[in-house]
Amino acid sequence: MSKKNRIRIYVDADLYTGGIVVCSEAQAHYLLNVMRLQTGNDVYVFNGRDGEFKSVIAQCGKKQCALRVETLFKTFENSPDVWLLFAPLKKDQTDFVIAKAVELGVSEIIPVITEYTSTTKMRTDRLHTLAIEAAEQSRRQDVPLLREAAELNKILNDWPAERTLFYLDESGNSGSAAEIMPQFSAPAALLVGPEGGFSEKELEFLKNLPYTYGISLGKRILRAETAVVAGLSCWQALCGDWRYK
Amino acid sequence: MSKKNRIRIYVDADLYTGGIVVCSEAQAHYLLNVMRLQTGNDVYVFNGRDGEFKSVIAQCGKKQCALRVETLFKTFENSPDVWLLFAPLKKDQTDFVIAKAVELGVSEIIPVITEYTSTTKMRTDRLHTLAIEAAEQSRRQDVPLLREAAELNKILNDWPAERTLFYLDESGNSGSAAEIMPQFSAPAALLVGPEGGFSEKELEFLKNLPYTYGISLGKRILRAETAVVAGLSCWQALCGDWRYK
Repeated sequence: MSKKNRIRIYVDADLYTGGIVVCSEAQAHYLLNVMRLQTGNDVYVFNGRDGEFKSVIAQCGKKQCALRVETLFKTFENSPDVWLLFAPLKKDQTDFVIAKAVELGVSEIIPVITEYTSTTKMRTDRLHTLAIEAAEQSRRQDVPLLREAAELNKILNDWPAERTLFYLDESGNSGSAAEIMPQFSAPAALLVGPEGGFSEKELEFLKNLPYTYGISLGKRILRAETAVVAGLSCWQALCGDWRYK
Repeated sequence: MSKKNRIRIYVDADLYTGGIVVCSEAQAHYLLNVMRLQTGNDVYVFNGRDGEFKSVIAQCGKKQCALRVETLFKTFENSPDVWLLFAPLKKDQTDFVIAKAVELGVSEIIPVITEYTSTTKMRTDRLHTLAIEAAEQSRRQDVPLLREAAELNKILNDWPAERTLFYLDESGNSGSAAEIMPQFSAPAALLVGPEGGFSEKELEFLKNLPYTYGISLGKRILRAETAVVAGLSCWQALCGDWRYK
């Protein structure tokens, strides 16, 4: 197993050399049956605070697996402080948005209910599992917090004023990402509306808040899930950790 | 039907006021059975050269539909001159890449076979239909050319020297999009390798060509299809038509 394709799992336990991590049943199934690992094989573990450690399978049975933590492989690094606020979409699209947001390094995901949001059904526990898988695969060292869905108004009423909120604006009245985003460093957040966009009332409200900036992503119509990936990519390239070599 | 949600179809025919456009069977099915339109209803048409025209259904039968072209709705505008070169993926991912590349405004799509490309099966006719649908929905006025798949070497041997080629480089040795891309105006191209990345030989070859620049999209591992959307978004934001209000 090359380090490039190393098997990574996210765990709750504290990580330190010599520690023992007991895997969940699902993780044991993944390691033993899907990846066909056995005692002595390497598994990399991270917990969102102690860094990534190389560990080995110390003991395994039918539905259980214990890892012995060996050496620190990578010191802990936070993902950039950018939140994603998005209006829930159909199931497959919401899954896509969650996975991509994790890959693209957001620190927190907040589903927001807007006027034109067509669906509000979401199983946060299932989406949390999805987020963990995406974090494991993208080699992040943390898993973004996934909050319960809330109304846009409610979220904005409690907004931390030091966090710049960029909302994707299809009206043609906002400036470009390249022009606006670099003026503001983290903490930041990106707000992407549903397929129908924001209502005029919402746009008016958003425009008048002191910490919000509309961003235009050109004249072509982007699907909501494309807009999420596009907006986060712009932010990472202009303000986030894609700026560094 | 508001203009925001106007029904658009791509046609081959020349477009001018008073002209008649005979729809294909698939288009007639879409307009009459899916969208449930009837004689007198508005349909917007574009052909990639004459601009977008408002037309009305002049006559329809069971499997056929003719449109009478009325007024010019939007003058023709080319998409920015950026090509996407990507290593074919599994069917669903390839479909995704084609649709997103069209949404994100590429002018040409070239599937490239690299050393680690795992699949070379592609039905270009089916993908062309997909590209047309994405163009209709994204309100582009043109449909990007979709070329047949070819070997990376062959493509680079015939490369037009004035076109800057940005390749996404996961090795950590390349600079950032924000630093490199704005130095070069269109024409440009983005090359995205397969899940396994480029081979060392390919990277060496790419690095030494006079018109190529490696781009790093940070340390997290992006899925190949995420990298396509991310890379094209960076280009549009920094060099393409997302820069303008």
